[in-house]
Amino acid sequence: MNVCSAKWSQHDNVGGKMARKTGSHGDITGPKVQAAALRLIARHGFAAVSMRQIAREVGLQAGALYRYTPDKQTLLFDLMRGHMDALLVAREGAAMAGTPLIRLDEFVRFHIRFHLERPDAVFVSYMELRNLTPENFATLEALRRVYEDQLEVILRFGVVAGVFDVVDTKISTLAIIAMLTGLTTWYREDGRLPLADIERIYTGLVHGAVGVK
Amino acid sequence: MNVCSAKWSQHDNVGGKMARKTGSHGDITGPKVQAAALRLIARHGFAAVSMRQIAREVGLQAGALYRYTPDKQTLLFDLMRGHMDALLVAREGAAMAGTPLIRLDEFVRFHIRFHLERPDAVFVSYMELRNLTPENFATLEALRRVYEDQLEVILRFGVVAGVFDVVDTKISTLAIIAMLTGLTTWYREDGRLPLADIERIYTGLVHGAVGVK
Repeated sequence: MNVCSAKWSQHDNVGGKMARKTGSHGDITGPKVQAAALRLIARHGFAAVSMRQIAREVGLQAGALYRYTPDKQTLLFDLMRGHMDALLVAREGAAMAGTPLIRLDEFVRFHIRFHLERPDAVFVSYMELRNLTPENFATLEALRRVYEDQLEVILRFGVVAGVFDVVDTKISTLAIIAMLTGLTTWYREDGRLPLADIERIYTGLVHGAVGVK
Repeated sequence: MNVCSAKWSQHDNVGGKMARKTGSHGDITGPKVQAAALRLIARHGFAAVSMRQIAREVGLQAGALYRYTPDKQTLLFDLMRGHMDALLVAREGAAMAGTPLIRLDEFVRFHIRFHLERPDAVFVSYMELRNLTPENFATLEALRRVYEDQLEVILRFGVVAGVFDVVDTKISTLAIIAMLTGLTTWYREDGRLPLADIERIYTGLVHGAVGVK
């Protein structure tokens, strides 16, 4: 199942000709620009970071940066959409078979691992929604909903199969995702418990929340 | 129980003489400065907001703003500490009697209501931790822990009483708080369900997560 394909055509339209060129020539400066922008925006916030600052971070003249992105709004949007695209692409390998419980556990582990590996992108994706144009915001929201729907489908499946007890699958979906993503705000590799233990504990919390029978 | 008193003495030391004067003269400009700063920082981010901009927002000359706060760092810290102080003061009325379940339900309802009423403060309190000095960050973390401990005490009480089934009370505390606070990112007054219904659903999710027997 390729849930992203529809979005990818949008992607090409929004980024425009210049943004498309970046990837197609195998230029590594494009990814460097994205990484620098992500780092700077996560640290200082979108409104406080200038194109000049991003250019300096990757050793470009300010003018040369515009070969990689037409403007700061597009750069932000590309970062946030890139994060959602990566999330959905990573989910393409997810088990579409198995019991509701197997699929739920797989989702929980996936969500934790994916987000723990990208704290800056998670932070920027939440924090900078306010700085997107309404059109870009709508696109991001649609992508986010595609992801959330994957969990909701699992919950509905479990309810129909009589193995989950969920009052409102939509709200449970949002609540579970918030609970899991919250881990990114406090997890430390050198913390009290290894990640495998933490994953087991969160899986247990989710089982309880969806009333696994 | 006054959980804040120790922190309040710190508060007086950190804010310094000028910040203390604000409240003691019943001047309404101080609160106006705080409200304007909160609004602007929530909208643009701390690094992008200047003292001049905050002054303009409340109709002061830039220089006059320094009668209310010695610098931007103190202003941010006062906002964030003010939010935590208000949270802890509001909790002073919380039931310290009752069964673990009664106390848990009361905490859930309290947390939802308190945070839904203050979306800007919730947003800034999470987003701008990165802009605090290490000392101010440590103070905020300590206040946050005082609040989290209130939920953890309830969970431990329930485990000891044999009515909750919780593997790790610390992690469950953080997970539940993240789940409840997440509501602030999607709740709309004109949404599909009235708040009372949403509260009931979240209370049920929390019951499941802590394994209410």
